[in-house]
Amino acid sequence: MSIQTDSNKKDLLRGGQFLVKETSAENVFTPEDFSEEQKMMRESVQEFVDREIMPKREEFEKKNYELTEELMRKAGEMGFLGVSVPEEYEGLGMGFVTTMLVVDYISGATGSFSTAFGAHSGIGTLPITLYGNEEQKKKYLPKLATGEWFGAYALTEPGAGSDANSGKTKAVLSEDKKYYSITGQKMWISNAGFCNMMIVFARIEDDKNITGFIVEYDPEDPNGISLGEEEKKLGIHSSSTRQVFFNDTKVPVENMLSERGNGFKIAMNALNVGRIKLAGACLDAQRRTINAAVKYANDRVQFKTPIANFGAVRSKLAEMATSAYAGESASYRAAKDIEDRIAIRQEEGNSHQEAELKGVEEYAIECSILKVAASEDLQNCTDEGIQIFGGMGFSADAPMESAWRDARITRIYEGTNEINRMLCVGMLIKKAMKGHVDLLGPATKVGEELTGIPSFDKPDYSDLFAEEKEMIKKLKKVFLMVSGSAVQKFGPQLEDHQQLLLASADILIEIYMAESAILRTEKNAKRFGANTQKEQIAMAKLYLYHAVDIINTRAKEGIVSFAEGDEQRMMLMGLKRFTKYDNHPNVVELRNVIAEKVVSENRYPF
Amino acid sequence: MSIQTDSNKKDLLRGGQFLVKETSAENVFTPEDFSEEQKMMRESVQEFVDREIMPKREEFEKKNYELTEELMRKAGEMGFLGVSVPEEYEGLGMGFVTTMLVVDYISGATGSFSTAFGAHSGIGTLPITLYGNEEQKKKYLPKLATGEWFGAYALTEPGAGSDANSGKTKAVLSEDKKYYSITGQKMWISNAGFCNMMIVFARIEDDKNITGFIVEYDPEDPNGISLGEEEKKLGIHSSSTRQVFFNDTKVPVENMLSERGNGFKIAMNALNVGRIKLAGACLDAQRRTINAAVKYANDRVQFKTPIANFGAVRSKLAEMATSAYAGESASYRAAKDIEDRIAIRQEEGNSHQEAELKGVEEYAIECSILKVAASEDLQNCTDEGIQIFGGMGFSADAPMESAWRDARITRIYEGTNEINRMLCVGMLIKKAMKGHVDLLGPATKVGEELTGIPSFDKPDYSDLFAEEKEMIKKLKKVFLMVSGSAVQKFGPQLEDHQQLLLASADILIEIYMAESAILRTEKNAKRFGANTQKEQIAMAKLYLYHAVDIINTRAKEGIVSFAEGDEQRMMLMGLKRFTKYDNHPNVVELRNVIAEKVVSENRYPF
Ligand SMILES: Cc1cc2nc3c(=O)[nH]c(=O)nc-3n(C[C@H](O)[C@H](O)[C@H](O)COP(=O)(O)OP(=O)(O)OC[C@H]3O[C@@H](n4cnc5c(N)ncnc54)[C@H](O)[C@@H]3O)c2cc1C
Ligand SMILES: Cc1cc2nc3c(=O)[nH]c(=O)nc-3n(C[C@H](O)[C@H](O)[C@H](O)COP(=O)(O)OP(=O)(O)OC[C@H]3O[C@@H](n4cnc5c(N)ncnc54)[C@H](O)[C@@H]3O)c2cc1C
Repeated sequence: MSIQTDSNKKDLLRGGQFLVKETSAENVFTPEDFSEEQKMMRESVQEFVDREIMPKREEFEKKNYELTEELMRKAGEMGFLGVSVPEEYEGLGMGFVTTMLVVDYISGATGSFSTAFGAHSGIGTLPITLYGNEEQKKKYLPKLATGEWFGAYALTEPGAGSDANSGKTKAVLSEDKKYYSITGQKMWISNAGFCNMMIVFARIEDDKNITGFIVEYDPEDPNGISLGEEEKKLGIHSSSTRQVFFNDTKVPVENMLSERGNGFKIAMNALNVGRIKLAGACLDAQRRTINAAVKYANDRVQFKTPIANFGAVRSKLAEMATSAYAGESASYRAAKDIEDRIAIRQEEGNSHQEAELKGVEEYAIECSILKVAASEDLQNCTDEGIQIFGGMGFSADAPMESAWRDARITRIYEGTNEINRMLCVGMLIKKAMKGHVDLLGPATKVGEELTGIPSFDKPDYSDLFAEEKEMIKKLKKVFLMVSGSAVQKFGPQLEDHQQLLLASADILIEIYMAESAILRTEKNAKRFGANTQKEQIAMAKLYLYHAVDIINTRAKEGIVSFAEGDEQRMMLMGLKRFTKYDNHPNVVELRNVIAEKVVSENRYPF
Repeated sequence: MSIQTDSNKKDLLRGGQFLVKETSAENVFTPEDFSEEQKMMRESVQEFVDREIMPKREEFEKKNYELTEELMRKAGEMGFLGVSVPEEYEGLGMGFVTTMLVVDYISGATGSFSTAFGAHSGIGTLPITLYGNEEQKKKYLPKLATGEWFGAYALTEPGAGSDANSGKTKAVLSEDKKYYSITGQKMWISNAGFCNMMIVFARIEDDKNITGFIVEYDPEDPNGISLGEEEKKLGIHSSSTRQVFFNDTKVPVENMLSERGNGFKIAMNALNVGRIKLAGACLDAQRRTINAAVKYANDRVQFKTPIANFGAVRSKLAEMATSAYAGESASYRAAKDIEDRIAIRQEEGNSHQEAELKGVEEYAIECSILKVAASEDLQNCTDEGIQIFGGMGFSADAPMESAWRDARITRIYEGTNEINRMLCVGMLIKKAMKGHVDLLGPATKVGEELTGIPSFDKPDYSDLFAEEKEMIKKLKKVFLMVSGSAVQKFGPQLEDHQQLLLASADILIEIYMAESAILRTEKNAKRFGANTQKEQIAMAKLYLYHAVDIINTRAKEGIVSFAEGDEQRMMLMGLKRFTKYDNHPNVVELRNVIAEKVVSENRYPF
């Protein structure tokens, strides 16, 4: 049964609905569902990275911006820069899943290239794909899709980072109404050093919201644009990051993107896509880190045995693999939801552009969840990678050093992880208010369950993941219980209780990640046989086990902080019930099963 | 009442005994107990760092090894290199606490200087102080104490890192029996580039254990010694780290340290001291990181308000301060225990040297605990520091970037944190076997308690920390329950169950840290008034709250992995009982109290 049938699409959950509805394994897309075309694409990207980027990893540490530009151009020749650009604009016109797959596999070797790729083909090109009019798309997309031109995205200013709509850059209409004159200072602009075009956000008069512009840049004829020095950075050493100064830069009126005052919306929607793609960009970096770590562990002998034989090392490898597996599971699940949503919208009569816009916007919650989870998993993975290498991990001659530094930026850009955490919960609550996702009904039910008498039936857990899926259901109740009461208590003031929002976000994130790992594995076990999925089953169980602990900790923190007396007691009792395993997994054994596979295959083999 | 009275010393617990005995607040040394002399010392070190090191922080990132050497020489002129060297050898002959205080406050500005200082005055000088004979001490200590000469410590080899006793470097006695000829390769040797003397470990014939030698090094007359290039490293960029090659290097027989085959013992004891000092070296780095972070947070405006007003930022600051506070509490507590133990041994007739040796060896468990805890707290602190700086955190122009990189090495050298985790539990079990610490008795009692009927009395919690101290007692039971059963189950094979050892270690570490923070605060509240300790009380409670969660998680992981059926159920019930708060603290409120103080004082003010 193909997952791409229309009937499946109709089952498609709305963004955030995963929290209150069950997803069946059949309805979830997994990396094992890649089509032949997608697999070929993956191979061709992997081949490109292994041939062109990996051998130059050391060179990438030497602030060789030209190298990045050169390889970006090669990536353009291969078509990789235009995967998601419609064919009529010389792109490959591929779906969202393939786009994810390309950004995933092209990003694993170095954060420098990953950032350049993301800034260009993600936030640098997308505003035009999503909001450009026909002329704009015709004029710019072919150049960007082929790598003839490179793009950048200039939103941030010295005084406007997280508060992106507060920028001071001005756009003033000329007297003849033919152009806008842009003046202001942008900061931290990736690809600035070699871009031919930037998406620039500026304010017209005293508009509440900023406006987006397509601004061409030719160093030979700078039109008031000048660049700051390359920033000295912790990582991504060959990614160009510079300030951009606009001094009376003349931009034809026809280069305004969408409408006046629509810039903040454009910026946010570009970032939504940017976020899920950034999650993708963290996946192959994890795989490659695991590969390097396990190879080292198999080679390095201490106490007369390869260190890969030590439980301390094995448990790290097992955890690293588990996070990567969960990250893949969740990223491709969400990517396919977006793709399906776009298709449904097109079927319903939306233009491709509109459909894509709405499709992505719909899953903004998932995009933020993924950005946070994958970036932190990558950081942990590289951190453990260093630790497995011991002293050599601290050496720039070994691959972990730059991987760890490069990973650090993924937790900051495209919205800091704190901002994204608060966003995903905030957006969910807003969706509930708007009636797009019914949280109130389920939350009320949980409330009734709390005061009711718990059932002491021992459920039948004989099916694969029966207990784990029951647990997922219960974890969703934890979220509803904690966040529901917080909303009740604080109403719109909840925004000011950031510590509670952050705790809720962690609960939400863990639910989505754990459920995704389980659904992927269940689907594969059903079609390929559970015996082929021994380690994957172990990983799904291990991920869930940790998720339960994290959720328990974070929920408890919330409960003891905003509830008192009887209410607190009742909620703590509920929490205990909702995080209780009837049969605990043997955690050490799970790790051993996973590690055995990684160590014996000498790589991340899933 | 002075803490230094003899009667107090008699109450002194043995190393590791904190786990089974209660320590009274009066018996614990705290940073608030520094003598006038110690405070003057602290001031003079701070003044040195602020004047000489802080202004050159950027220069330290430029691999300026000469700068490190120059400032080390200045530190020598100030007497800082010889704090712990006896006065008869031109040191200051100060006690262990003062030694800690100096290494703490001298290390906060940059990891490069911190490493040079530690390698010289810790592991580079200590083997002579602890094991040198009179001639050796007379010959070398004055030079090392004054900074006329610099020392290094050459243990690690390409094939011998964690397995330090497996080195291949050979020492062959000459025919005339006048010298040893040393041949071999050492790796990762700090200070190699400018040292005049190294403690070198080499094997004589096929000895089971290595032997220590004092080897002079003069580049003008290298005696077979040559250096590799400076290693390219992730951090501590101006700390010299090179390979050292010995080719038939002639070392007079009188330069053997202690006896043939005693080298491994020397190496390990030097590392013990090295570890607690490394913990000290992580403290001021945390304070300075917090200072920089809160200053930035107070200055940086987003959404029309300083980001220090956001709960997301405040909670980070509160957690950072809490870890630093706990680290100080535990480090100085242990340092004073060592100092007292040395004094007792001297009173009992040990020579100063012997007393110091045994005094430090006694607290090897605490030294490992502190090394792990402080290094990881520093890593987290700098990591959150970056996050508070947002994009600027990723810039080499801001202080967080190098702090984060420098912190990374502290989790690797002086024994990786994994090795130290396993060591602290392993040593405790050994001490129990030897009868030095009675674990069996208390563990048996816990076993009885588990099968007995729990008391439902509500204890009287009206005194400050009454519930918290009860909790600490219960957490100790958790350790005894989990590790006790593991020992019973696996006996000496427990060594092979590293995942269990690691989980046990985390329990042990959290107990020591949390107890130390509580005892320090209790002592200060008693003498200065609880109203003066509002934030400290909040920090002690917050630290404990997290400790309970960590212990719960780690203990559960152990229990579900090695116990089954009824035994598992019983232990999980016990765990629930032993980690249960009768009155949960309001965690969010605790953080707010702490953050308010840090933010309003604009620095780490404790
Ligand atoms: C290497 C690099 C490349 C980049 N590339 C680009 C690019 O190509 N184009 C572009 O436009 N930008 C780019 N950026 C900018 C990046 O998106 C911003 O750095 C990021 O959004 C954070 O903004 P900031 O640095 O101003 O931090 P701030 O907004 O000042 O944040 C500082 C701290 O305050 C917290 N904070 C801020 N507001 C709140 C709040 N309301 N509640 C709670 N906490 C809050 C943050 O979470 C953070 O911890 C790049 C940055 C870097 C470092
Ligand atoms: C910057 C720097 C400065 C240094 N300075 C000095 C110095 O001045 N003098 C000196 O002598 N040395 C020095 N060292 C060496 C340092 O002490 C070692 O790097 C450290 O002890 C780890 O050894 P290794 O690098 O060989 O790692 P390995 O021992 O190879 O360890 C690799 C991994 O295996 C794990 N592992 C190893 N054995 C076991 C086991 N039995 N069970 C479970 N896990 C295990 C480790 O925990 C680690 O995760 C320095 C190192 C660095 C990077």
